[in-house]
Amino acid sequence: MNPATPTAAVGDLVTRRLVGHSLEAPFYVSEELFGLDVEAVFARHWIFVATEAEVPEPGDYVTVTLGPYSVIIVRDDDEDVRAFHNVCRHRGARILNEERGSVGNIVCGYHHWTYGVDGKLLHAESQAPDFDRSCFGLRSVHVRTVAGLVYICLAAEPPADFDEIITRVEPYLAPHNLARAKVATQIDLIENANWKLTLENNRECYHCTGHPELQACYFPIYGYQEQDVPAVLRPTYERFLRADADARATYEELGLPYATIEELDTRPTGFRIQREPLDGAGESYTADGTAACKRLLADFPTARLGRLSFHTQPNAWFHLMADHAITFSAIPLGPDRTLVRTTWLVHADAVEGVDYDLDTLTKVWKATNVQDAVFVERAQRGVSSPAYVPGPYAPTEAQVEAFVNWYVTRLEAHLEQQR
Amino acid sequence: MNPATPTAAVGDLVTRRLVGHSLEAPFYVSEELFGLDVEAVFARHWIFVATEAEVPEPGDYVTVTLGPYSVIIVRDDDEDVRAFHNVCRHRGARILNEERGSVGNIVCGYHHWTYGVDGKLLHAESQAPDFDRSCFGLRSVHVRTVAGLVYICLAAEPPADFDEIITRVEPYLAPHNLARAKVATQIDLIENANWKLTLENNRECYHCTGHPELQACYFPIYGYQEQDVPAVLRPTYERFLRADADARATYEELGLPYATIEELDTRPTGFRIQREPLDGAGESYTADGTAACKRLLADFPTARLGRLSFHTQPNAWFHLMADHAITFSAIPLGPDRTLVRTTWLVHADAVEGVDYDLDTLTKVWKATNVQDAVFVERAQRGVSSPAYVPGPYAPTEAQVEAFVNWYVTRLEAHLEQQR
Amino acid sequence: MNPATPTAAVGDLVTRRLVGHSLEAPFYVSEELFGLDVEAVFARHWIFVATEAEVPEPGDYVTVTLGPYSVIIVRDDDEDVRAFHNVCRHRGARILNEERGSVGNIVCGYHHWTYGVDGKLLHAESQAPDFDRSCFGLRSVHVRTVAGLVYICLAAEPPADFDEIITRVEPYLAPHNLARAKVATQIDLIENANWKLTLENNRECYHCTGHPELQACYFPIYGYQEQDVPAVLRPTYERFLRADADARATYEELGLPYATIEELDTRPTGFRIQREPLDGAGESYTADGTAACKRLLADFPTARLGRLSFHTQPNAWFHLMADHAITFSAIPLGPDRTLVRTTWLVHADAVEGVDYDLDTLTKVWKATNVQDAVFVERAQRGVSSPAYVPGPYAPTEAQVEAFVNWYVTRLEAHLEQQR
Repeated sequence: MNPATPTAAVGDLVTRRLVGHSLEAPFYVSEELFGLDVEAVFARHWIFVATEAEVPEPGDYVTVTLGPYSVIIVRDDDEDVRAFHNVCRHRGARILNEERGSVGNIVCGYHHWTYGVDGKLLHAESQAPDFDRSCFGLRSVHVRTVAGLVYICLAAEPPADFDEIITRVEPYLAPHNLARAKVATQIDLIENANWKLTLENNRECYHCTGHPELQACYFPIYGYQEQDVPAVLRPTYERFLRADADARATYEELGLPYATIEELDTRPTGFRIQREPLDGAGESYTADGTAACKRLLADFPTARLGRLSFHTQPNAWFHLMADHAITFSAIPLGPDRTLVRTTWLVHADAVEGVDYDLDTLTKVWKATNVQDAVFVERAQRGVSSPAYVPGPYAPTEAQVEAFVNWYVTRLEAHLEQQR
Repeated sequence: MNPATPTAAVGDLVTRRLVGHSLEAPFYVSEELFGLDVEAVFARHWIFVATEAEVPEPGDYVTVTLGPYSVIIVRDDDEDVRAFHNVCRHRGARILNEERGSVGNIVCGYHHWTYGVDGKLLHAESQAPDFDRSCFGLRSVHVRTVAGLVYICLAAEPPADFDEIITRVEPYLAPHNLARAKVATQIDLIENANWKLTLENNRECYHCTGHPELQACYFPIYGYQEQDVPAVLRPTYERFLRADADARATYEELGLPYATIEELDTRPTGFRIQREPLDGAGESYTADGTAACKRLLADFPTARLGRLSFHTQPNAWFHLMADHAITFSAIPLGPDRTLVRTTWLVHADAVEGVDYDLDTLTKVWKATNVQDAVFVERAQRGVSSPAYVPGPYAPTEAQVEAFVNWYVTRLEAHLEQQR
Repeated sequence: MNPATPTAAVGDLVTRRLVGHSLEAPFYVSEELFGLDVEAVFARHWIFVATEAEVPEPGDYVTVTLGPYSVIIVRDDDEDVRAFHNVCRHRGARILNEERGSVGNIVCGYHHWTYGVDGKLLHAESQAPDFDRSCFGLRSVHVRTVAGLVYICLAAEPPADFDEIITRVEPYLAPHNLARAKVATQIDLIENANWKLTLENNRECYHCTGHPELQACYFPIYGYQEQDVPAVLRPTYERFLRADADARATYEELGLPYATIEELDTRPTGFRIQREPLDGAGESYTADGTAACKRLLADFPTARLGRLSFHTQPNAWFHLMADHAITFSAIPLGPDRTLVRTTWLVHADAVEGVDYDLDTLTKVWKATNVQDAVFVERAQRGVSSPAYVPGPYAPTEAQVEAFVNWYVTRLEAHLEQQR
């Protein structure tokens, strides 16, 4: 009835995991491990759930779902972003039932218990004289904003290393001015696969021939060392080297930090950040690489900044360009169902139809996401066969392995704690 | 494979239940507790399943579903109401596959085993000479009728206190003549919530501002003691006191019993009965409180009788007016799915379009049921969050607490028996 | 995480099974027993999955699903039929995602690992120098063809008795020339019932009054001994005896073996084969018993050969006539869901619209299958009631009992092995 104690079988699986190989099937298909993933990963780590652009004004809120949890992200009257469990303290009704909106107070629609946007219970009708309102405020959730990105942690004691990461990545992110951005559009896609297959797919470009739209602007040698580049990609690789040299010169000139930091599996909050050129016109994720939005995110002297790519374990990745930014998060819905939410951000003053066209802005990643959904669904179906045995990662899949390392380490830490 | 022995966790939950507070989450969301609810509550107690009006003639039947059980309610050739398990004694096929109908014999459509409406096996083709038909009659189910309401009990030994209750409530119910009523209409609604949330919602009017149609004819101070009435409801409360005094005079004059009996959590068959005025014209559950059916249920000298409200634990409630009656039952379909069946009864000779208009008759409770479905779905979603903690009942929720007391007591009795 | 060790409750159920009676409910409804059925029955025995007619040319393939398994049936370059697990050896993706098709090599669409139709890994891009392709061929599955019928076995060590059965049944089957047939059509039907109810229904004609189309051409006394024939079927039975005498004369004249072999519950690969007349014109399963296809399956001097009926435990049955053949298989999808796949075969050179009309060819069994789906769904719903108790088989249900005997014996053997 309480979160079940993990069975011995889970411990065995973790112990016998074969380094350099994909995980055994139960990690992707078992209900028990899914529950454990929610508890040990999603309820214990810092999770990206929204952008500040989604709650620009006091009272603006979004509700986010993480496994069985529902959380209200709301901007309070001091313009700070707050997070609360979306559960009434009376008989537990879900309070806010829309995905987003704007409120004065947070009022439960069932018996009208009324909370401030700071979570305090302001009013509960017809109570006994000894009822103490101060005991029934909304339960709060840890929240941090990182250059316009909103992270929450459901744990009582969040991983302590996040502050240091913020300090290190904000110089990369801040120039793109996301806190002054607006949402151009947001698209939810449900992938019929375990969330880890979604992440593993995202962490390699070994499958990138399956992404024709993406390849027009993205160098499909992500994760490749020189010796891994096959003959067919050699010309692309040479082009990348030239573009990369140009880009570095630009970054130096503009004072944009670009050194890659990769600490994926050595800390509680694994992350990676990297600034690299794009292919084609080199400006953006579009059919030919030219900027999709005339109004740049900041006062950059050129749109040709390539991509600033940021990734935080377990489930989010970001691409920040000169003209727009894209945030991605994968939210587990079940052992074989994952929500992928993609949000396109442009400058707050950019005007649709004038500065940007929504189809042009979203075309590459809309197509790529749908292609990835097919890939990971095939992976899910395949690993569900008892005939599946973990296979070896290719050298270009090093980040997949780092993700799996991180995951197994965090699971071990959780199991250790439960003992 | 047999009904599983309840785990220790269930016992702990029952033991640590906090009086005066809503139940812990597993009671509403766990599959194990759902199975236990079916076994310990629905398969052991007297359950309202139909009205006699649904089976007026010999051979008329309805099939009712209670968890995994299917039961045939049929009027036999002596005009008695009988109940049988809807399972062929040959290879177990479900025999009657429609919700209602009329039969001469009860014939299984698979291999044509043929039973009388008294349950006896009359014929089975091509059997060996030693086959003994008398061993293969339909398995019977305990059944009782109470002033036109049909109750069954699936247990081998039903709670013995039901006879006494019948004796006490029939004087209240009988004047409304339900055994001579007909079904005007019946509506099934599926609520996405645990059946206990459906019942808890029904047992209080603390949420009644969410029912605008209902408030036009119903005093929304159900469950309130004088000191609980908030300022906003004060005028309503004064109006109620005046109407109540009038109503009592009428009941005395007509010899209608009206003293409230409330024995909700002190016996196996918890119940409550009460006669009270309605608001508006005071006659019926309609937009203005006037009678919806010109032909009254009985030869009453006035239609202004308010409501006779009857409730039996675990899952049924009734409103009997001068002009019509409404029966409600909540049937569990899953931890988070409940069927609410509402049946409107009018005098057998009332003619639709002449004596009553169906929309007028059903408007208030159709709207109220849909509103309640939204409330309880929000409650279900909220308590599913690990962040939910049981909260305190307000004084006006005393009947909710009595329901929960009854439920926990019955569960304890069942667990005790299993030991 | 590994296939769970069966609980003690399963052993009890097997031990206390009442001979001569239908099985207890958990055999039909429990998830645990469903998983065990897949492991102990479908993953250990020879299972009919396709006809050779579905893969006529090298590179032609079908994919078949057995519980959590997906298997590729492919004709290799030597024109042999091969079977492989449809799981990429890299990260486990399902390789072929269509039900059927034709390929040169078997290429995984995810990272383009490329296998020959013999299963060998031919190519994997960007690997480290020490990567050994020969270790990563597709995992093979045992496969045998029987006069044009394709059987697979997922076990490491398949039941050894299958070769002897092939030797005994090929003389019956071979004259119908199925290896030179083509698929006229294939229809999948999902029955909302346990696969064993599907089989039990198929093994008796006690329910055949529910099949009006079938009765026009099929003697509905299948499974009846003379003493079981009820008065109403007496004329039919007399007609059958005359037709049977005629048929035997024809079989003798043509040298077609026709002695019934019935070894249903005495061996790992239980089977039954029988040649018998049909009713009406006696040629085929059509509205009046006349042949549905002018071009016969082989160079028979007459179309009036009745039916050669073949059945293999656990899940397949076949009817071979002079003019066409029909294969049936039942594939478990869940405790209460079963796929029934029916395939109509005609001579490879028969032309639709000229030699046969598809509606005429399929009418009887299309109707019969739909009727059976209703019967078994009722059985599933009935046995799901806790009030269900196993009932006695009638004498005409001897083959149902033989099927159940076989099933319980195989389950016992599996449980014994697990100990």
